[in-house]
Amino acid sequence: MKNTRVLLASRPVGLPARENWQIDAVETAEPGVGEFLAEVLYISLDPAMRGWVNEGKSYIEAVEIGAVMRAGGVARVVASQHPSFVAGDYVVGMTGAQKFWTSDGNGAQKVDPDLAPLPRYLGALGMPGMTAYFGILEVAGLKEGDTVLVSGAAGAVGALVGQIAKIKGCRVIGIAGGAEKCRYIVEELGFDGAIDYKSESLYPAVKQHCPEGIDVYFDNVGGETLDVALANLRLHARIAICGAISQYNSTAPIKGPQNYLSLLVNRAKMEGFIVFDYAARYPQAARDMGQWLAQGRLQAKEHIVEGLETFPETLLMLFDGRNQGKLIIKV
Amino acid sequence: MKNTRVLLASRPVGLPARENWQIDAVETAEPGVGEFLAEVLYISLDPAMRGWVNEGKSYIEAVEIGAVMRAGGVARVVASQHPSFVAGDYVVGMTGAQKFWTSDGNGAQKVDPDLAPLPRYLGALGMPGMTAYFGILEVAGLKEGDTVLVSGAAGAVGALVGQIAKIKGCRVIGIAGGAEKCRYIVEELGFDGAIDYKSESLYPAVKQHCPEGIDVYFDNVGGETLDVALANLRLHARIAICGAISQYNSTAPIKGPQNYLSLLVNRAKMEGFIVFDYAARYPQAARDMGQWLAQGRLQAKEHIVEGLETFPETLLMLFDGRNQGKLIIKV
Repeated sequence: MKNTRVLLASRPVGLPARENWQIDAVETAEPGVGEFLAEVLYISLDPAMRGWVNEGKSYIEAVEIGAVMRAGGVARVVASQHPSFVAGDYVVGMTGAQKFWTSDGNGAQKVDPDLAPLPRYLGALGMPGMTAYFGILEVAGLKEGDTVLVSGAAGAVGALVGQIAKIKGCRVIGIAGGAEKCRYIVEELGFDGAIDYKSESLYPAVKQHCPEGIDVYFDNVGGETLDVALANLRLHARIAICGAISQYNSTAPIKGPQNYLSLLVNRAKMEGFIVFDYAARYPQAARDMGQWLAQGRLQAKEHIVEGLETFPETLLMLFDGRNQGKLIIKV
Repeated sequence: MKNTRVLLASRPVGLPARENWQIDAVETAEPGVGEFLAEVLYISLDPAMRGWVNEGKSYIEAVEIGAVMRAGGVARVVASQHPSFVAGDYVVGMTGAQKFWTSDGNGAQKVDPDLAPLPRYLGALGMPGMTAYFGILEVAGLKEGDTVLVSGAAGAVGALVGQIAKIKGCRVIGIAGGAEKCRYIVEELGFDGAIDYKSESLYPAVKQHCPEGIDVYFDNVGGETLDVALANLRLHARIAICGAISQYNSTAPIKGPQNYLSLLVNRAKMEGFIVFDYAARYPQAARDMGQWLAQGRLQAKEHIVEGLETFPETLLMLFDGRNQGKLIIKV
């Protein structure tokens, strides 16, 4: 059996280009003692990947040149010498962008394909789900009645953040790119309002949708959007910094939030977080999310592209906003 | 009796200039029923004043053109028709930059001239003291053993912040301008180290003094210093935003903190605050501060300039850093 792999060939400058990746195929080895071998079925494509291929450690080690690209995935065990996994088990874990995954079980979690479609374990029941859950409920300290602004609102995390805030009794405005995404978050996800950053001027639009200001801003994008949110804070507002996709591919210096002194004027706070810190509490969050999904109170949507070989091009969909829902490759 | 007053003549662009102020003298009226008249002895000069004269409301209304400049002061009651104040009482309050203050008692607090020199009620026992106390203990959530970085460390607030952190068992590094201020905070105030931003390069200096990073950064200055602090955060660091004196007189757009994504990488937070929010708890803080002063664990220093008429020039000392200690005018 051949293992097809996506390797990091060189570090991208700006948007990752085709030549930053190399796709090869190597012989698959039998699992050693204490290991299992699994066939990777789906991998998750996330904005965070752009940071993982930059040089230097941030919250996690950089992917090394020549190494298999780091990726979360769902896999089916095909052979095992590990005491806790048997052939036929479905598992999620950091499989990497490859067709076969050899694992010592570290970080691998069994999942039930009858409880939810497998790709969902990479979306609402996976990392984006956990990110949304802990980010909005814990980091942002969501309270009933809050006015919540979410950027990247049609994205994997943003769509869940807004829906969780609705479940918790908040007023939710989403910022997304394009009329279709705006329609989607309002009509299908139940957001109270949407702002199309591609056709609307952000500052007046936020002002109009949140005339009394924002209690919570959940930031996936950074840049100008963060500045507009800062300019519209209410007293004691909270900003959860989840990401800054507008800046990830920029070759210019990062744009700092010029309006940060609004934090002082409004006694507000801005806090960053990394979902991995909440790993011990994923089961609690997954229970809540699973229940909301089952009750139809939470909608999950995956955007599935076929073929591991499409990785270099598919990844770019995240940065020009072409994906509608959690972006996943069916290997 | 003539009341000499400092009026705001026009809104400054950049550094406040002489022509932005007008000094006049008007007849002093007898206090009405429920009022007292007090002779202002000392007024406090604070960086926040620069914000108060900008157009538009921030956390407090702007001073109007033609109005007496807002200022905290210590005054002695000379005549009273107020049930709680009698002639001879010493009071602190928002006296304004003038020689006589007519008040309905709102916000006026009696102080004891035998417990502390009167100017101290505008420094360690006044607004700067309360700002330092609640900012470092509450907003920054100071913990024993923290590595604390303070900017404006020889200033009214910064000097107290550093000393409180030392009392609480922290390692404290101060950033100040010039060799004399650096000597002062280390030798007289007991800081563990000092960085002279006028002669040292900030990033390597912070790196050297805090090789394992910063747990708490107390920011009085903003600008590049905030960015250097962000680049040196430890996990779960806290930044208390007290002010941004480097930006107050800038006619260019405010410089946003380009390294703000360090908040994400380090799961850190940045929070602004306004001391007025803690007014109900000033007595508790004043008790602690008074005790530390009495025990010699806290040093307070005032820089007193004589003459209300010097207000326009004396105010500028704050912005070029010429004051050594809490800047006060003896009226």
